[in-house]
Amino acid sequence: MSVTLAIDAMGGDHGLVVTIPASCDFLQKHSDVKIVLVGNAELIKQALIEFPQAPMERIQIISASEVVLMDDPIEVALRRKKDSSMRVAITQVKDGLADAIISSGNTGALMAISRYILKTLDGVDRPAIAAAIPNEKGLGTTMLDLGANSDCEPMHLVQFAQMANVMLQVIDGIPNPSIGLLNIGEEVIKGNEVVKRTGELLHQTNLNFYGNVEGDDIFKGTTDIVVCDGFVGNVVLKASEGLAKMMSGLIKHEFNRSLLTKLMAICAMVPLLRVRKRVDHRRYNGAVLLGLRGCVIKSHGSADRFAFGFAVDRAYEAAKNRMVERIAQAFVVETTSL
Amino acid sequence: MSVTLAIDAMGGDHGLVVTIPASCDFLQKHSDVKIVLVGNAELIKQALIEFPQAPMERIQIISASEVVLMDDPIEVALRRKKDSSMRVAITQVKDGLADAIISSGNTGALMAISRYILKTLDGVDRPAIAAAIPNEKGLGTTMLDLGANSDCEPMHLVQFAQMANVMLQVIDGIPNPSIGLLNIGEEVIKGNEVVKRTGELLHQTNLNFYGNVEGDDIFKGTTDIVVCDGFVGNVVLKASEGLAKMMSGLIKHEFNRSLLTKLMAICAMVPLLRVRKRVDHRRYNGAVLLGLRGCVIKSHGSADRFAFGFAVDRAYEAAKNRMVERIAQAFVVETTSL
Repeated sequence: MSVTLAIDAMGGDHGLVVTIPASCDFLQKHSDVKIVLVGNAELIKQALIEFPQAPMERIQIISASEVVLMDDPIEVALRRKKDSSMRVAITQVKDGLADAIISSGNTGALMAISRYILKTLDGVDRPAIAAAIPNEKGLGTTMLDLGANSDCEPMHLVQFAQMANVMLQVIDGIPNPSIGLLNIGEEVIKGNEVVKRTGELLHQTNLNFYGNVEGDDIFKGTTDIVVCDGFVGNVVLKASEGLAKMMSGLIKHEFNRSLLTKLMAICAMVPLLRVRKRVDHRRYNGAVLLGLRGCVIKSHGSADRFAFGFAVDRAYEAAKNRMVERIAQAFVVETTSL
Repeated sequence: MSVTLAIDAMGGDHGLVVTIPASCDFLQKHSDVKIVLVGNAELIKQALIEFPQAPMERIQIISASEVVLMDDPIEVALRRKKDSSMRVAITQVKDGLADAIISSGNTGALMAISRYILKTLDGVDRPAIAAAIPNEKGLGTTMLDLGANSDCEPMHLVQFAQMANVMLQVIDGIPNPSIGLLNIGEEVIKGNEVVKRTGELLHQTNLNFYGNVEGDDIFKGTTDIVVCDGFVGNVVLKASEGLAKMMSGLIKHEFNRSLLTKLMAICAMVPLLRVRKRVDHRRYNGAVLLGLRGCVIKSHGSADRFAFGFAVDRAYEAAKNRMVERIAQAFVVETTSL
């Protein structure tokens, strides 16, 4: 079976400079893939000239005259830019012309347009954003929701767990992923009301529910999946990015202090690079928008060629293994069994 | 003016091994301080023998027969262990025999017993836990609440801001600290309902309200204070501890791989130690329980002699500069001005 991936070629901080090389890399690695590049056709063609070895018979260019900017309000992206590369790419999935869409554009716009064009799966109240975060075990802890839903009811969190459960089976090949509910521990009051009720509901499902986990369990890799509302998830994700950036900034600063410390940096290069590789967020690039009638993958806005390739790979795995159909099935089974 | 500090000598993972040496260190540095050591009097006396240079005339020992364990449920700590070192130490403050109390014990128990014994200040609906987190600027970002209140109303968050405002003026000498409201940014929905309403209320106060901040702003040091509910605060704090631990674990692991990498570690020691020093959480030890009729400082359970000293120092600054009275005044002014 061949897989067709629609790529918002203009999206993200870098646009074509990243999306075109990464697409060509991917086509060369996977002979069963076709890529639909959506955006300014002239500029795309021009960018492709630099990749004469690219299999042009598996590349299709679809023109879109507008681009959703990273700071465009959702309303502008959704209502005014009706010929944006993002929207036209999503429409490819809606029309059955592509199996998945990948964009590095504005997350809010991507979710809003995807919901509008693709609609939500039956039984799913709220789509959610799921992504893997590097953990101590050298694997990724998949966390959701990362910002689509700031106020959640217990049933929404249970649905997030159900969707992520299918996603990890399909994309990561984990047969029965463990699920943790993000909570606070030994402090005065254990968890808020929504989380307490969610715990009770999760125990009643047939999911592999581990129970409550705390903030540090994300990085310990205590469970494969960590479920929380989009407010908490987004704050944790950004705080972690902020801390990691501060740490690496400090390390760079201290090694750049003098000629002597620069020499020390050269001496310590190998282990430090190994550390960086192990927690390299680029390898975990590609958040999945779950709960839609179509496979939508969000790449980090600042993703480079290497990172974007990982997002494309997640889209490929999800599409090839029919993630959306399997989530839909899980919700049908769930509903009939209740 | 002399300051009397009550110390729960038995609290924390290490108890006397940490509290006694740190108390003796502190007394030697501050001639205007008296310390009341609360706990098993025999064991305290025995531990003091190792510090013959300690100014015994400024040390008082008060006996308490029980100890709140780190995993004691709050009910046990509060209702059954009525002669715990924690409770007896807090009672010193209640009875006007000490100006502040420091404990490394169980946070939940410390908050519950403090609320029960000391009561809450007029105008304060909910006490909160505030602590500083190291940021890029080399200062601390004070964050609250860190786990006392998982479900908050907008007015509670406004009160947290008001209390932290006084705390930073008093303890850190920042005349008009800037206050950020923790929120999520460009994602689909900007913030939950409570946060939106809190922002409106904070704009109406005379506080130096910066506006919304995101997770990474905590580590950028965008504002002096970051306000959030105790659920989010606790998750972020623990996630950050988890990430920092993972990073330092990975660095150690990579430098310990072989004799060669161990040699590299020696070469890189100076800059790496400087980084560690700059983000050393021990220097930020000492969370403040705000909103009580008495000054209560929580030291990290695993604090060592060095870290515990910082918690004692925060208690000393808060007591000397009459933090509790000034918070009380701020709430009187606030109430009459409304």
